[in-house]
Amino acid sequence: MPQPAIPSRRVMIGSLTAGLGSLAAASAAAQGGGGLPATPTGRPDPQLERPPQQAEDRRLGWAVAGLGHFAQAYALPALGRALMSRPAGLISGSPDKLRAVGARYGIGEAHRYGYDMARLRDDDSVQVVYVITPNSTHAELTVRALEAGKHVMCEKPMATSAADCQRMIDAAKAAGRRLMIAYRAHFEPYNMEARRMAEAGELGRIWFAASDHHRPLDPSKPRDEWRMRKDIAGGGSLVDIGIYSLNGLIWLLGEEPVAVTATIHSPPGDKRFAEIENVMTAQLEFASGARVNISSGYTADKKRIDLWGDKAVAVLDPATAYKDNRLTLSNAREQRQVISEAASAEQFTGVIDHLSNAILNNGAVATPGEMGLRDMRIIEALYRSAATQQRVALNPDMTMKG
Amino acid sequence: MPQPAIPSRRVMIGSLTAGLGSLAAASAAAQGGGGLPATPTGRPDPQLERPPQQAEDRRLGWAVAGLGHFAQAYALPALGRALMSRPAGLISGSPDKLRAVGARYGIGEAHRYGYDMARLRDDDSVQVVYVITPNSTHAELTVRALEAGKHVMCEKPMATSAADCQRMIDAAKAAGRRLMIAYRAHFEPYNMEARRMAEAGELGRIWFAASDHHRPLDPSKPRDEWRMRKDIAGGGSLVDIGIYSLNGLIWLLGEEPVAVTATIHSPPGDKRFAEIENVMTAQLEFASGARVNISSGYTADKKRIDLWGDKAVAVLDPATAYKDNRLTLSNAREQRQVISEAASAEQFTGVIDHLSNAILNNGAVATPGEMGLRDMRIIEALYRSAATQQRVALNPDMTMKG
Amino acid sequence: MPQPAIPSRRVMIGSLTAGLGSLAAASAAAQGGGGLPATPTGRPDPQLERPPQQAEDRRLGWAVAGLGHFAQAYALPALGRALMSRPAGLISGSPDKLRAVGARYGIGEAHRYGYDMARLRDDDSVQVVYVITPNSTHAELTVRALEAGKHVMCEKPMATSAADCQRMIDAAKAAGRRLMIAYRAHFEPYNMEARRMAEAGELGRIWFAASDHHRPLDPSKPRDEWRMRKDIAGGGSLVDIGIYSLNGLIWLLGEEPVAVTATIHSPPGDKRFAEIENVMTAQLEFASGARVNISSGYTADKKRIDLWGDKAVAVLDPATAYKDNRLTLSNAREQRQVISEAASAEQFTGVIDHLSNAILNNGAVATPGEMGLRDMRIIEALYRSAATQQRVALNPDMTMKG
Amino acid sequence: MPQPAIPSRRVMIGSLTAGLGSLAAASAAAQGGGGLPATPTGRPDPQLERPPQQAEDRRLGWAVAGLGHFAQAYALPALGRALMSRPAGLISGSPDKLRAVGARYGIGEAHRYGYDMARLRDDDSVQVVYVITPNSTHAELTVRALEAGKHVMCEKPMATSAADCQRMIDAAKAAGRRLMIAYRAHFEPYNMEARRMAEAGELGRIWFAASDHHRPLDPSKPRDEWRMRKDIAGGGSLVDIGIYSLNGLIWLLGEEPVAVTATIHSPPGDKRFAEIENVMTAQLEFASGARVNISSGYTADKKRIDLWGDKAVAVLDPATAYKDNRLTLSNAREQRQVISEAASAEQFTGVIDHLSNAILNNGAVATPGEMGLRDMRIIEALYRSAATQQRVALNPDMTMKG
Repeated sequence: MPQPAIPSRRVMIGSLTAGLGSLAAASAAAQGGGGLPATPTGRPDPQLERPPQQAEDRRLGWAVAGLGHFAQAYALPALGRALMSRPAGLISGSPDKLRAVGARYGIGEAHRYGYDMARLRDDDSVQVVYVITPNSTHAELTVRALEAGKHVMCEKPMATSAADCQRMIDAAKAAGRRLMIAYRAHFEPYNMEARRMAEAGELGRIWFAASDHHRPLDPSKPRDEWRMRKDIAGGGSLVDIGIYSLNGLIWLLGEEPVAVTATIHSPPGDKRFAEIENVMTAQLEFASGARVNISSGYTADKKRIDLWGDKAVAVLDPATAYKDNRLTLSNAREQRQVISEAASAEQFTGVIDHLSNAILNNGAVATPGEMGLRDMRIIEALYRSAATQQRVALNPDMTMKG
Repeated sequence: MPQPAIPSRRVMIGSLTAGLGSLAAASAAAQGGGGLPATPTGRPDPQLERPPQQAEDRRLGWAVAGLGHFAQAYALPALGRALMSRPAGLISGSPDKLRAVGARYGIGEAHRYGYDMARLRDDDSVQVVYVITPNSTHAELTVRALEAGKHVMCEKPMATSAADCQRMIDAAKAAGRRLMIAYRAHFEPYNMEARRMAEAGELGRIWFAASDHHRPLDPSKPRDEWRMRKDIAGGGSLVDIGIYSLNGLIWLLGEEPVAVTATIHSPPGDKRFAEIENVMTAQLEFASGARVNISSGYTADKKRIDLWGDKAVAVLDPATAYKDNRLTLSNAREQRQVISEAASAEQFTGVIDHLSNAILNNGAVATPGEMGLRDMRIIEALYRSAATQQRVALNPDMTMKG
Repeated sequence: MPQPAIPSRRVMIGSLTAGLGSLAAASAAAQGGGGLPATPTGRPDPQLERPPQQAEDRRLGWAVAGLGHFAQAYALPALGRALMSRPAGLISGSPDKLRAVGARYGIGEAHRYGYDMARLRDDDSVQVVYVITPNSTHAELTVRALEAGKHVMCEKPMATSAADCQRMIDAAKAAGRRLMIAYRAHFEPYNMEARRMAEAGELGRIWFAASDHHRPLDPSKPRDEWRMRKDIAGGGSLVDIGIYSLNGLIWLLGEEPVAVTATIHSPPGDKRFAEIENVMTAQLEFASGARVNISSGYTADKKRIDLWGDKAVAVLDPATAYKDNRLTLSNAREQRQVISEAASAEQFTGVIDHLSNAILNNGAVATPGEMGLRDMRIIEALYRSAATQQRVALNPDMTMKG
Repeated sequence: MPQPAIPSRRVMIGSLTAGLGSLAAASAAAQGGGGLPATPTGRPDPQLERPPQQAEDRRLGWAVAGLGHFAQAYALPALGRALMSRPAGLISGSPDKLRAVGARYGIGEAHRYGYDMARLRDDDSVQVVYVITPNSTHAELTVRALEAGKHVMCEKPMATSAADCQRMIDAAKAAGRRLMIAYRAHFEPYNMEARRMAEAGELGRIWFAASDHHRPLDPSKPRDEWRMRKDIAGGGSLVDIGIYSLNGLIWLLGEEPVAVTATIHSPPGDKRFAEIENVMTAQLEFASGARVNISSGYTADKKRIDLWGDKAVAVLDPATAYKDNRLTLSNAREQRQVISEAASAEQFTGVIDHLSNAILNNGAVATPGEMGLRDMRIIEALYRSAATQQRVALNPDMTMKG
């Protein structure tokens, strides 16, 4: 039996008792005896640490393009628990997958599409397309979705060439739609805290920073198969995970490089590396004088970012894992691990809701297509440097000098 | 445009190319040029580390009773992402909450109930009621839900007296329904790994174990208000979080105590502790000879369990947090942190799906009402020991001797 | 060639150059060419973080009684590097040991003694005797050394009975000499920092504390053989390492217990525990309301102390190891590891120099015989409680009530 | 009263009692009553984990040249506790220091020298000279000591130019004496364990490694003053601490680089960096295909080395601190901290005794002058690369190509 709403936010013990009394009486009447013991059931809304999920019809509808491992294990569940977004469409080349995944998320046949995205333009329940396919298809699928009038979230790397990135940006402009790159780390609680600290000067002056992203490429897993093919992946460890080092440090330092020097290496005889590089190392120089060392690799297993400030050294380790990232600050006197209330897993909903929010409230996109293009240009400079064994200077728009 | 299903689980490079070719052709036709670059879009289902969410109509419907902080911030989101369960009903004394939360989760008016649960018996979309109200109401609400023909998950502590626990168990038997206590730690990945290690003998012989659960009681938070009232909470830090120490160690050791000695203390002048204890300490003796120290408190902030084996000491710290629990093994030669693929947050879906699975597949419930009764009896013995300053010996059913 | 002393503490670049110039000239003259490059060799004394060792003749002479493992591996090396103390005599029942160790440390035959300590009274180079023999001999050897007019440092536990402790204190008073118990943790950098923090209120109010000291008893090691014999050791894990938990927490909390409840257990069939206890657990109650859980054991391997303050929980883990102890503070927002400039190994010289300093400068002894007696009384109360399964209340002087 | 030696290494309980009995009788006779309680005083030598200090006259005599902070706070104390070495002479430009330090260590006037080292040749109590002066003087002092017929331990960096290094090596050959560079990390327990693991293949194949050495240069400390002067220090952070990254990784990987690319940076306006570099970054390429990133700096505070193996990533952090270094291994499943029985502080005695042992037993020197020369050549290549913004290829002897 319903209770009258209690207007005040905080309930006093006195009113609690009153509330309990009426409930007890009500339930006694309803049950013909027994009754519910005294309890503060009349309390108002709980003080939630974070805002709750919005009502279903106020969440933007997203269609996921590409139903591979990441889409099924991370993107779709994240859409299911996002606050301002919901799964509303599926795009795949496999009718079987469309059927199975559609049933799981209650996405009817009317909202399931092949990669041609025919009829998607008319599907009003879908406002955003999330492109999660192998790298070489990002550009074409993004353009198609934009041309269908949808906003686009595109996984990193944005594409396999700067030219493709530019084409995607142009298409977004032509369509008047948003284009965002899914740089999750910008929404990961510990990365965000490191960024806040660096910006606030809490780490002091940062003259050096470093980041290393390595993970073993496993050819026995379907999701790693295509990464061994240069035409599909566009490169090796650099484009896949080295991009986290690159994008992360530029963001954390708030500055873009003026020159890069890189090397790459592919172990002969290892079939994984017949087309792509295993290890990439690079030095980045910044106009401020800051220096950065980065590396990526496809054999070891560790993902780390550090900012070497003269007040404290901040280490994110792991920096960009799907869960349990950790931020530690140290100097000669202490080592301090920061504990965020938010879990690393919130990066998945965070990146999604960021775009929904930007669309709904006309806000800025923190990681737009232009950032993806910038990173692709630097990646091209890194490969150039590695190929020529020469330092490559960069223009302000990150195109190569000379 | 749909692709034909590919029967084999793993795709060979050859068939990949074929698949890509047909897609490229299809899209070229559809788009009148351009076409999608070669990509392995024809791959079969991804190898998911864990099973995906089942289709909506195959998940059991749950009604949540009590829409406070835990329900809104943890239980309902967990039901939203559970694999075999889904939110299907709401039970509350507040019409406002029923309306707001109902809208958020798409639970219509027909499935919203007051605490009398009138008509719930006829609601076929609800199979389970999850009781998340203040402790003193657990028994009555559980009995009502069982009488309405629903299975029940009840939050810990099961009730505020062993007598109430017995009444709940009797009601479940009478109704032929399941009654489970939401001891989440049994489904938390790091606790589970510690349990596996202990059982497998990887820690060696465990002659001593300890656990301390402390967290600051904050009277400014509505969700902590009722915990200061003995009639509602049933006790202080012991029943709220000390129960994690108690239940956890019994589970991890696989043995129940034969005697307990306890003390409690309430700092005079602190209004939080006018009715309930702040600190509880206890020693537990086991027939095997093992000894256990536990404590709980409402002022410090740390939750830890350790098993002192003669091969390794396992420390869970935090042991029972909502996220980022950690398991470390140590001996004189090394300290080893175990990293689970599963996140601590899965405990919330794990505990829920465990009951759904037991119902659907007629399986055993790992943390049944009988376990809640057992723990309540030990709690009563601990309070008795503290009050009498005497060691209390226990019968095999955990009732007090003498 | 000697340089004139430079009076100022800090050298300016100008004077540096001058100094270097003269050195260069000097060396050029001396060598007939070449010469030493410019360098600031004329700098005054370095700023040492800690005071240097005093001149040999200003360090007090110590004789070590008992030349077992601890004496040879820790005590004698510590005397060698102590700032105010030096090895000056040896006392042992083994002429072979006296010869071998004497040669190693340059301690001549005139300063080597049997346990009768005949002639020691006349040895003016020895001012202190450090008793490092099995527990049951502490009292007699201490009394002999005091009667020979020497000050005494006695290893923990002070003796095997409170009566013996009292006899030692009486002998010290009669002789007008100092008697100190080697509670090293009071001089260990991280324990000292924890003590400072607790006293300064940096941890907030501490309502609960805990400490567990366990290490595997290894009967294959001569130094563990006698610990299995009750007549020699005086008890099991409690007197050997549990005393660290007991003494440490009383010191850190700055308060003595008013009642104790304990259990002990000896696994049947394990020959190590035919006479002594393996595990001891205890609860301590304090007048302030604070509660403490302690344990000790001879099978697992870990030594930990924690203070559960309401501002932060301080964990020493390891707390009382010979090296690499660690102090970590945590609350819900962060975990902070404190890094001391001093190494844990300084506890060995710290405890020694503390007594030398007290003797030389008439200072107070932080861990006097009276503290050893107090701890022995509590230990006797713990064993009484374990034997009677009763809580034992304590008088202000730690004798048992009733 | 002496006991007869007991021949067997391990004492049986039976013989213990016998031994105790005779002691008790003896002491009873000696004391006229009382007597010592039964105790295993007749035990043979303790099983020491590590060998004890040798008798004084069997330890090699060392003279320390340069009595600054490191010499007084670390080198001389280490000589005092070394197993095969002892402090026997002092060399300084300051008569005051010679007097004060000489008194402290009992080193008489006859063994105190100016930098001309006149008469040192005739001092038979000194076999080794340990050069701990500012970098620019290493070469000249080393040559003088060698010409005086002494062996030399020289601090890192060996000198300020490869030419000087060669001159030192030539002098050692001419004199038939040993020349060792004090690369302490080769004797630090955790670095040694990492080296062992890498060599044994326990980390798997290492395609990438990294090391960063940074510490704040403090111009207010006399010991940092000269480091700001290029003529004395020979360079900035690279020669001071970057050399740890360089030397450490070459040792740990067991391979020397074939090419290097480096940058350096000196913040304008910071007087500390008017002459020398703050940050240095470099990439090293190895013939095996391995790649290394290193950096050094004079503003942040952290010293780390990691080896990214495909079985595990080994992280030394801190890697080369004076105490409490730490070795952690990680992969996706666990993070494991290795605990050595030896303390990091043993690196100071380890490096010293290594040379004494090599001299006494005609053994090889692990870190000879040739290693110092090699490192200096690489350092010169790094500075060349930074100055020219070009990759510098190296010959097998580490001289620059082209």
